[in-house]
Amino acid sequence: MSMIASSVGAAFFPAQGIIKSKPAGLHVKANGRASPSIDGPKVTVGLEGTNASSTRKFMNLLPDWSMLLAAFTTIFEKQKVVVDQFRFGHDRLVYSENFTIRSYEIGADQTASIETVMNLLQETGINCFRSLGLLLDGFDSTVEMCKRDLIWVVTRMQVIVDHYPSRGDTVEVETHCGAYGKHGHRREWLIRNSKTGQILTRATSVLVVMNKRTRRLSILPDEVRRELEPYFMENLSVMKDQGRKLPKVDHSIADYVRQGLTCQWSDLDINQHVNHIKYVKWIFESVPVSILESHEISSMTLEFKRECGKDSMLQSLTAVVSGRRVDGSVEETDVEFQHLLQLEDGPEVMRGTTKWRPKSTLFPNSISH
Amino acid sequence: MSMIASSVGAAFFPAQGIIKSKPAGLHVKANGRASPSIDGPKVTVGLEGTNASSTRKFMNLLPDWSMLLAAFTTIFEKQKVVVDQFRFGHDRLVYSENFTIRSYEIGADQTASIETVMNLLQETGINCFRSLGLLLDGFDSTVEMCKRDLIWVVTRMQVIVDHYPSRGDTVEVETHCGAYGKHGHRREWLIRNSKTGQILTRATSVLVVMNKRTRRLSILPDEVRRELEPYFMENLSVMKDQGRKLPKVDHSIADYVRQGLTCQWSDLDINQHVNHIKYVKWIFESVPVSILESHEISSMTLEFKRECGKDSMLQSLTAVVSGRRVDGSVEETDVEFQHLLQLEDGPEVMRGTTKWRPKSTLFPNSISH
Repeated sequence: MSMIASSVGAAFFPAQGIIKSKPAGLHVKANGRASPSIDGPKVTVGLEGTNASSTRKFMNLLPDWSMLLAAFTTIFEKQKVVVDQFRFGHDRLVYSENFTIRSYEIGADQTASIETVMNLLQETGINCFRSLGLLLDGFDSTVEMCKRDLIWVVTRMQVIVDHYPSRGDTVEVETHCGAYGKHGHRREWLIRNSKTGQILTRATSVLVVMNKRTRRLSILPDEVRRELEPYFMENLSVMKDQGRKLPKVDHSIADYVRQGLTCQWSDLDINQHVNHIKYVKWIFESVPVSILESHEISSMTLEFKRECGKDSMLQSLTAVVSGRRVDGSVEETDVEFQHLLQLEDGPEVMRGTTKWRPKSTLFPNSISH
Repeated sequence: MSMIASSVGAAFFPAQGIIKSKPAGLHVKANGRASPSIDGPKVTVGLEGTNASSTRKFMNLLPDWSMLLAAFTTIFEKQKVVVDQFRFGHDRLVYSENFTIRSYEIGADQTASIETVMNLLQETGINCFRSLGLLLDGFDSTVEMCKRDLIWVVTRMQVIVDHYPSRGDTVEVETHCGAYGKHGHRREWLIRNSKTGQILTRATSVLVVMNKRTRRLSILPDEVRRELEPYFMENLSVMKDQGRKLPKVDHSIADYVRQGLTCQWSDLDINQHVNHIKYVKWIFESVPVSILESHEISSMTLEFKRECGKDSMLQSLTAVVSGRRVDGSVEETDVEFQHLLQLEDGPEVMRGTTKWRPKSTLFPNSISH
């Protein structure tokens, strides 16, 4: 098989000097605000030095959309500016990115899994900071954090899912952050169906700093706070997290216990510990399969207490809070659970509560072997 | 927090009729060939009725790239045509899609995992058929397959990874398919670094049809073959798969055995069985952690023998074929393993061979708890 051209546009216009030239200074302001840099400090997207009337005039001169399309195919390819993915909304502090749900991001019921939802939250949280120029190249930490060996860790997370997108749906994830006491920052997200605007998910999390050598939490140094504060929004309002501490489940009240859970090397993230999203899959280990098949999570609150490494052995405990007691049969009502993840030798790893509602569509039971 | 506009462009041009109008008939031919439809039969991408000289002339008239950029931001948003993602190369039978590696697609060493590579192969394989209009809406099967309750299952897969991309890298996945005996079709992939053109991965797989009710393999019905044949390439040449049957590992020759592996409900795919990509993670369960930390897979061949369901209990066996015997210490040479996944009560699930090379960069060991 012969190679295809490395640039789409090159196939359309094999010798267009104007296309091959690098429009390096493509600087932009949207709505008259300075737009932070996107995907690194060198490229920003938007309009500078233009106004609506001159643009309208120009637009009327355009002879053919298809030619424009071909021209821009090339520009985007060369610039690696994915307009669909990186953009800023009404405020420079709000970051927004579009994602189309892929075949490997859905479950047996053909909708995005809660893990996929959390992946998108993590991805946009990092991309938000990166687009603001806050992160050192190759790291998820700011310059002042890197100087001090500090990394971000999630300590609390709350997610409300009104609707799970299906494969092929495009969702818009919007996020921003604000101050959170002396230890870190709080981040909020809103996920919408890009086509209909329907709100699918609201989420909030608290991130604090940890020393990556001592693995101990730290107060946010003033130098780091000064880096972040210009980008904090004053009023976060996607959802109210009461900050209520979650109750502890123990073996005496747990209805379901799964022991002997181990970490895979592939569960580790760049901070050399098990990524917090894996913790949700461990919760599922002690939720009855009949509930996983018939219900979906409508909301959850998670308190992360401790890191896990490659040698960790865990237990997952689940207690039924409301809804009929589950004995293998399919529940037809909403259900609420409390959860605990703990190391086999006792220390807490995570507390959580999850609320589940019946799925709107049931799929055939999976095969058994 | 107030809502941002559902279209990027709307923020730039709040009242542009020309932008809001739907350029519905955006039909295209690339290089004079008819281009198959993209993302459904209604929208195709490319150039129709244009030629290089008229386009060049038009290009010279363009007053300002930034205005063009803003105009197209809107068009792409409205059309949901992601130019960066969907395009056809030199031949209408070759499908190509770009992906930027995300934070949740990398491992502790900051490069894409083999699981991510396989996810991209699966995604583009399905999207290739979908873009050709071969799949029934909501299914991964053709119309004639759906009539007969048939689904595709992977029976053999070979992957060679020369280089793993890092987070933020954009890769171009190119794929096409061809005939394969009486039972199915063969698919080939080439993954390149979009920026440098460097070939990162070559892969091939054989897919056969299974009846989703009886769960038995079937000969490819003539009606299905007739649907597919117009899209088969005659000569597949990305890599030679000798088709050699892999040897069977048993307990007498296995150097490492991991028992008691279970399926999670979240591992099931839309075919209601464990997705084949999960099988690779099960292989890892019996590979020494010292190898996972110090080495990366350079190539692998997998033969899938049997489905797994939610109740399956498995064993993962690994035998060292070449390279020094591993006793917890870090290997400095290439290593080759043979693998077997089997149900606890005996039947084979998968055979595999993997070759590993030392990683070019070593990262600090993960924390332990």
